[in-house]
Amino acid sequence: MRMGEGVEWAAHACLLLSALPDGAGLPAAAIAAFHDVPPAYLAKHMQALARAGIVTSARGASGGYRLARAPEEINLLQIADAVDGGEPAFRCTEIRQRGPCAAKAEECMKACGIAAAFWAAERIYRQHLEGVRLADIRSALVRKQDSANMERLKAWLEAHANN
Amino acid sequence: MRMGEGVEWAAHACLLLSALPDGAGLPAAAIAAFHDVPPAYLAKHMQALARAGIVTSARGASGGYRLARAPEEINLLQIADAVDGGEPAFRCTEIRQRGPCAAKAEECMKACGIAAAFWAAERIYRQHLEGVRLADIRSALVRKQDSANMERLKAWLEAHANN
Ligand code: FES
Ligand code: FES
Repeated sequence: MRMGEGVEWAAHACLLLSALPDGAGLPAAAIAAFHDVPPAYLAKHMQALARAGIVTSARGASGGYRLARAPEEINLLQIADAVDGGEPAFRCTEIRQRGPCAAKAEECMKACGIAAAFWAAERIYRQHLEGVRLADIRSALVRKQDSANMERLKAWLEAHANN
Repeated sequence: MRMGEGVEWAAHACLLLSALPDGAGLPAAAIAAFHDVPPAYLAKHMQALARAGIVTSARGASGGYRLARAPEEINLLQIADAVDGGEPAFRCTEIRQRGPCAAKAEECMKACGIAAAFWAAERIYRQHLEGVRLADIRSALVRKQDSANMERLKAWLEAHANN
């Protein structure tokens, strides 16, 4: 069971955008440069975040990406689903309805016990991620960041953000 | 995030083996026929279960697969890990250590907050599956099975199992 590498990138991109001054936007190329990742791949993930309504992008001199809502309103499940698709990890092909002792379709109105257990585990996985807000990640990071790092980030954002 | 289809097959194969009379074994070809799946694929998953110590196989006239221990001692996490590998789904490439504002390695002794949240969600997912024993799946199934189905399964096993 593997998630795309893009989930890490997208979550960190959102974390970076959460540090932007009010009203500022950050071009995709700057987000890629900040993380030292290939711009084309990063752009794909930023577009997925935009399609999911997590970020918005504006064109022009004051353009770039910004969060579409407050970091309190964005959680890790939304980011993961935007980039990774959010389909169930466990696939049930109704194998119980095959073979010489196949269950009849009318006996299979409810999910098989095996599928039900996997999907229940996925639900609690998703609930956990849903409870972790971008704001929580950001404030935990800011708390343990030393002031030199904060200044460096601020200066970088001032040099690259559009207002 | 996707699991291999083999997890469903392997879990159902274990469920079938849990219905075998004491001491009996079931050849891989019979397990594949029971589920109407390609024998070569099923064999691969049975070998993964054997490598993980969940089933054992014996050669010869009384050969075939059987559970390596009681269905109370086998859980869905063990089956999933045997077939799907059990690596963490979320991949952290330490993206925070890249780019113009890279964190220093000595600041990264602890997992990044983003990775930590994903891995915590995976832990509770795994704990849930660990709590679901093959014996639970089997007894829930037996409870709701009508007697005609149970007889059909018994007759099929008698015709195909080796003792
Ligand atoms: S029929 Fe799909 S998991 Fe049981
Ligand atoms: S550095 Fe990998 S998730 Fe943050």
